[in-house]
Amino acid sequence: MTPSLEREREAVEKDLAKVLPSASRWPETLHRAMRYAVLGGGKRLRPVLARIACRAAGGDADAVGRAACGLELIHSYSLVHDDLPALDDDVLRRGRATVHVAFDEPTAILVGDALLTEGLLVLARYPQGEKWAARRARVTETVAEAVSSRGMVGGQMEDLEATGQVTGDGVEIEPERRLERIHRHKTGCLLRASVEVGAIWAGADESVRTAMRSYGESLGLAFQVADDILDVTASAQELGKSPGKDAATAKLTFVTLYGVDTARAMLADLEAEMLALAEAVEGPDGALAELARFVVSRRS
Amino acid sequence: MTPSLEREREAVEKDLAKVLPSASRWPETLHRAMRYAVLGGGKRLRPVLARIACRAAGGDADAVGRAACGLELIHSYSLVHDDLPALDDDVLRRGRATVHVAFDEPTAILVGDALLTEGLLVLARYPQGEKWAARRARVTETVAEAVSSRGMVGGQMEDLEATGQVTGDGVEIEPERRLERIHRHKTGCLLRASVEVGAIWAGADESVRTAMRSYGESLGLAFQVADDILDVTASAQELGKSPGKDAATAKLTFVTLYGVDTARAMLADLEAEMLALAEAVEGPDGALAELARFVVSRRS
Repeated sequence: MTPSLEREREAVEKDLAKVLPSASRWPETLHRAMRYAVLGGGKRLRPVLARIACRAAGGDADAVGRAACGLELIHSYSLVHDDLPALDDDVLRRGRATVHVAFDEPTAILVGDALLTEGLLVLARYPQGEKWAARRARVTETVAEAVSSRGMVGGQMEDLEATGQVTGDGVEIEPERRLERIHRHKTGCLLRASVEVGAIWAGADESVRTAMRSYGESLGLAFQVADDILDVTASAQELGKSPGKDAATAKLTFVTLYGVDTARAMLADLEAEMLALAEAVEGPDGALAELARFVVSRRS
Repeated sequence: MTPSLEREREAVEKDLAKVLPSASRWPETLHRAMRYAVLGGGKRLRPVLARIACRAAGGDADAVGRAACGLELIHSYSLVHDDLPALDDDVLRRGRATVHVAFDEPTAILVGDALLTEGLLVLARYPQGEKWAARRARVTETVAEAVSSRGMVGGQMEDLEATGQVTGDGVEIEPERRLERIHRHKTGCLLRASVEVGAIWAGADESVRTAMRSYGESLGLAFQVADDILDVTASAQELGKSPGKDAATAKLTFVTLYGVDTARAMLADLEAEMLALAEAVEGPDGALAELARFVVSRRS
């Protein structure tokens, strides 16, 4: 990360440790597991994005610091549940044992439930004070819709149907459309909402919110295309996990479907779109542009 | 149920069918499973309670009809996840196959996640209009806190620790305290919050809200004590599930711990408390008193 993005990440990290219940508070094991799930590192992309978007739209990022953590709690819940034996059955996440391995499966299910609840709670509670109440309600609604059955959870369901892990409706769908639909929902919706709530906290008008939504939409897609490219080009050390897994498992990705060159061209187009939208909102070379470049060129 | 409680239940039932996404909308299987989980009958105690409390505090129950459904969606999520193989491993609920049996385990996990999200979303979204915004934020925060790790999910965690399904912190605790703590959280918190949000929607002052909270607290406990008594006194036909299961599994209940006579005396005390609080809020023989009597004397 660039130094200015790194400063945002550190601010998020500090707020996260505060909004999570202390491990010495009842029920201790659950709270310890929640902190284990969230505080194990990570780019904190969603709250960083919300802070940057808030500032770009003229708001005060520090005033919404705790609230922005709600986005990370929700992202963390989705990882804990995705890793469960009944879903992706992953034992490693960010180089550490996943929650159901470090604790147990019932605890991991409850950790996910509690993190989702806490994430939406934090958005409904902060920033405190009557003058923020209407924005809190709107932000909570926006994020909940983004991670609902029509959003993130729907993307996860479609992904499970694509891999045959659940029985779908038997409706045939072209792989291109399915791939786009999975990612637009599974990762895209929460990333887009993160940008949008930044604009809501700042009290931005509708035109800025629309530009922010488009930026967020492209960012979500770019994030996923970059991920798929990294799987074939990065080393295990850079990635912190085994590369080449997608090809080995014949997973539907932008690279397995279109090839790495086309995927790279898509990524360049998305970057250009994001830079144009960022410039419209905050002028040239602002934080939104910096984050767009980071997502496109990241090595891990 | 009495005719007037039955009318409330029917109003809830109609709103529930509307707030749940249609099964013909993407992702179809997930939406079908969500509707299966929620629309299979049930007393709808939480939204009925919220409607009655709202009216008792001078508010308009029909204006908050959709919002009140959020409470039922959250209750349904907790049942779907509790029934999972990794938790209580139940195959029957209200005489029908549980969600992970009727569909599959990954779908059941996502159904629970989506219902929790939808429940809080509905509370943050309805009633619509700027003048309700501050109450929406407050209601969402109140309910989220009630079902958080310090509330409902914490009670579930403690219950799993009590039965040895998860590894606790090894802290010894007396069975009386543990039993009370499990129920105060696992069922009590959401029931209490249901009464409280009724008062918030009505714009009730702090003294009414405090009386409502106490009523809700007693109701939650009464509900559980009555449940434990029914397990030893009701027939399978009345109950819709096998009675005597608690004693057979040596489960910690008010009856296995104190005996049925003491449990009955506790229930009578709780009823007297609730009737006094109900009278203070709505005068004699109102709907809160009716509901208190129903919970205490129910046969199933």
